Amino acid sequence: MEVATDAVRLVDHHAHGALRAAPKRRSAFEAMLGGSPLDSQLGFSVRRWCAPALGLDEHATAEEYWSARSTLGEPEVNRRLLGAAAVSTYLLDTGYDVGSVLAPAEHAAASGAAVHEVVRLESLAAYLLRRTDDPVAFVTAFPAALHAATRDAKATVGALAHRAGFDLDPGRPSEDAVRQAADRMLQAGEEQVTDPVLERHLLWCAIDLGLPVQVQCGHGDADLDLPYANPLLLSGWLRATEASGVPVVLLHGYPFHREAGYLARVFVHVHVDVGAGLAQVGSQARQVVAESLELAPFTKQLYSSDAWGPAELHLLGALRWRRAMAQVLGAWVGEDEWSADDALRVLHLIGHENAERLYRL
Amino acid sequence: MEVATDAVRLVDHHAHGALRAAPKRRSAFEAMLGGSPLDSQLGFSVRRWCAPALGLDEHATAEEYWSARSTLGEPEVNRRLLGAAAVSTYLLDTGYDVGSVLAPAEHAAASGAAVHEVVRLESLAAYLLRRTDDPVAFVTAFPAALHAATRDAKATVGALAHRAGFDLDPGRPSEDAVRQAADRMLQAGEEQVTDPVLERHLLWCAIDLGLPVQVQCGHGDADLDLPYANPLLLSGWLRATEASGVPVVLLHGYPFHREAGYLARVFVHVHVDVGAGLAQVGSQARQVVAESLELAPFTKQLYSSDAWGPAELHLLGALRWRRAMAQVLGAWVGEDEWSADDALRVLHLIGHENAERLYRL
Amino acid sequence: MEVATDAVRLVDHHAHGALRAAPKRRSAFEAMLGGSPLDSQLGFSVRRWCAPALGLDEHATAEEYWSARSTLGEPEVNRRLLGAAAVSTYLLDTGYDVGSVLAPAEHAAASGAAVHEVVRLESLAAYLLRRTDDPVAFVTAFPAALHAATRDAKATVGALAHRAGFDLDPGRPSEDAVRQAADRMLQAGEEQVTDPVLERHLLWCAIDLGLPVQVQCGHGDADLDLPYANPLLLSGWLRATEASGVPVVLLHGYPFHREAGYLARVFVHVHVDVGAGLAQVGSQARQVVAESLELAPFTKQLYSSDAWGPAELHLLGALRWRRAMAQVLGAWVGEDEWSADDALRVLHLIGHENAERLYRL
Repeated sequence: MEVATDAVRLVDHHAHGALRAAPKRRSAFEAMLGGSPLDSQLGFSVRRWCAPALGLDEHATAEEYWSARSTLGEPEVNRRLLGAAAVSTYLLDTGYDVGSVLAPAEHAAASGAAVHEVVRLESLAAYLLRRTDDPVAFVTAFPAALHAATRDAKATVGALAHRAGFDLDPGRPSEDAVRQAADRMLQAGEEQVTDPVLERHLLWCAIDLGLPVQVQCGHGDADLDLPYANPLLLSGWLRATEASGVPVVLLHGYPFHREAGYLARVFVHVHVDVGAGLAQVGSQARQVVAESLELAPFTKQLYSSDAWGPAELHLLGALRWRRAMAQVLGAWVGEDEWSADDALRVLHLIGHENAERLYRL
Repeated sequence: MEVATDAVRLVDHHAHGALRAAPKRRSAFEAMLGGSPLDSQLGFSVRRWCAPALGLDEHATAEEYWSARSTLGEPEVNRRLLGAAAVSTYLLDTGYDVGSVLAPAEHAAASGAAVHEVVRLESLAAYLLRRTDDPVAFVTAFPAALHAATRDAKATVGALAHRAGFDLDPGRPSEDAVRQAADRMLQAGEEQVTDPVLERHLLWCAIDLGLPVQVQCGHGDADLDLPYANPLLLSGWLRATEASGVPVVLLHGYPFHREAGYLARVFVHVHVDVGAGLAQVGSQARQVVAESLELAPFTKQLYSSDAWGPAELHLLGALRWRRAMAQVLGAWVGEDEWSADDALRVLHLIGHENAERLYRL
Repeated sequence: MEVATDAVRLVDHHAHGALRAAPKRRSAFEAMLGGSPLDSQLGFSVRRWCAPALGLDEHATAEEYWSARSTLGEPEVNRRLLGAAAVSTYLLDTGYDVGSVLAPAEHAAASGAAVHEVVRLESLAAYLLRRTDDPVAFVTAFPAALHAATRDAKATVGALAHRAGFDLDPGRPSEDAVRQAADRMLQAGEEQVTDPVLERHLLWCAIDLGLPVQVQCGHGDADLDLPYANPLLLSGWLRATEASGVPVVLLHGYPFHREAGYLARVFVHVHVDVGAGLAQVGSQARQVVAESLELAPFTKQLYSSDAWGPAELHLLGALRWRRAMAQVLGAWVGEDEWSADDALRVLHLIGHENAERLYRL
């Protein structure tokens, strides 16, 4: 038996805009998908599940797919694939390679979905540091700038997994330490925030702000630079921030989704998703979704695609989640493990209700 | 095809007593289960599998369940749920929050099972340290006290995963180092043993004693304070203790059960269970049990619930293990991977024979 | 539906020779299998899948199996089991306990397969260090010796997981540091290369040589001494070697196969197999193979048995891979996730084409 999941409202609580313009070369398009559509689960999924939305047969060849995509042009590709994704609301991270992708209002128009913003802490800090050579000014300016930048935003997001890593001192750094770190960064002329002290400062400012703080873990963006991003290493910081009551959302933990689920179980303020992993693992999404439903409370799980760029990723994230949830929940109802009512309740919690409550949508 | 597992004798080789008195408030009961019965695998299992034992329909609501439970009272709840668990023998850890749960003799009466004791090293050490202000006396008194405390016990258990963690020097600490650590603890007026040197001292005293030494790993008790308890970090200590011939039992390794199985494979004296994980992951128990049967020799695996308090946990541990073993072994026999005789043999090994041999029951 | 995998050509790109002579005692044979055929997945597989090749019934008893094996003698056992494995080409690691196993030409004759050599870095270095007492001579001699030793070889292999571990400085060590490390080893009279500086030197010399570099990870040889061999810890070294263009092959990553797959996804030069894990986990091979197909590109996965000694291991490696691939790919084709053509293509890529391309076979 299958649980019907097609009609469930879906909030994609962490994604990026769809591509603004068609990739000039097939190799550029394939690089955005992490490699050839002929040699990965993701590529097979594009040919199986996205091809029909472009008017092709299922399992179209990579050549056919690229040809159809190029002929249609990015606006039409976006319209079709985002339409098929049928996501109701996107929360878009506007801090990563924004020149290449649609701005929130454009993504809303292309998808027909409501769109809200998530502010990336490191991007805002880098922006400020490019505009000053006074580390003292930076220390005092960041909280105010964060406040202003998030006036209409629903969350902040920290990318420390891509930089300093999770194995850092959990406490709030002193003003003096932050000033010195900013000074080092200014002296070195660095463009990206990678200093662990600065990362800690940004995270604690985000806690002070009070909006939910998303933290990227495990397999993530294309700029991921640090494979060792096991969220268990965040335990100290999670313990230090639990009393604040500010929600922390661990994003796309694969292959650490069981560990992330454990954290959601033991820390009151921790929420999780499997995010980017689902589209990547393709026909294995069913197992990964089942594992994600082991320890984490169902009221603390969310859906995200972490898609950036090609709208194939927005579609496949949603499709994989809907399809895997239908199979997993259907099997449990079929074995009389779960009642059908409970399965539906969990489907709506993870699909949209938890995100609506958490982000006050 | 299914392998019949209902009638297999079951030794729960690490649990705690059932609740002495009914929780006063529903919220207290739910906290003992780690959260609302509406939002977790464990909660769904309570409503599906425990409700009938209380005279309710399967998938009863959380309200109905709490109401029936409160009406029956704890003695009757215990009688029904422990009866349904059908465990033949319990080894009870008597060192954790003993005021709230039945003493061994009471648990035996309520369950109709044989009950033996497991002595918690840290609790005994804390007891001694509360009764002296002389660290030298502690160093010499602990081995003798351990000997006396375990006269009728079947094993000791170390909770270092909850305190100092596994990433410690594997060797036996010097008497001088132990004395200094005890002195620090006495000076600081600490109630709990958390010092890594003291932890090492307790573990080595347990090895000297010669009873099997249980070590908690991964997801465990409610007082778990250290999510990073990967048993692979114990490798050095396991290598150092292998020649002693004293059995070490790694308890409830989820989500590190594959790693724990590896250790049982390469170290002669290492045994494992999946313990607490099974009741927690609910309808995913089948996958977790299958994974636990990958590397660990079948003569070195045991069953435990790690249940503490609500008898729902004693029942669900046993039910999940029996049900998942029936499904997993049944599938392998059905695919002609295993013979039916081998499946039955493994069922009895893990269900009771390994524990009976290891603990001389 | 099942995908037919019996006829696919198979390259076992990392194995050791089959046993030269029958084990004298049953206990010695069982130790080579890691324990009793009565108490592990591997043992059950021997009785289920190897017994018929020796003329016994499926699920023969351990006594019957040992008796038949002893009666036939090792040449006939090898002929039958290696014949049933139906491997087309072996790449044999000739650096581990070579006295007990067939030399490459002998293994070729016994199996009817083509055989090529893989040179173990640590064995060559230990050989050189036994023949000199001048650390300076060692530093200059190793590259030339490696060049000579690999004239007909297809790859080198590093066993650092068994010695210094992966958590080492990724950079090329200075000549001075290598000389000092060799000096320390010579002074101490050590037989095995375990020094992290020497390990780094060997690995960088292998990169300079340009042949594919195999690196053992996770569960492996019987001499494995370091359970903590998570390939994620190699990230720094992989980043440092990516520009060289020399392929790196992470061998048998279980239980870290998901992490290894991630590395194959993000590093251009990284390839992976699940190797030794498959025969070990027996009837769980289906799940492990499915997990190995999650992130790693299909053009960067290979097959190996990592078998050493008893030809049961050569057969079970091949049988488990073929059987699990048939089940996993068959299920995905059956669910219309993959096309049958794609399934066949991936089968041939991993079975032999990737290895033929990588090792220029």
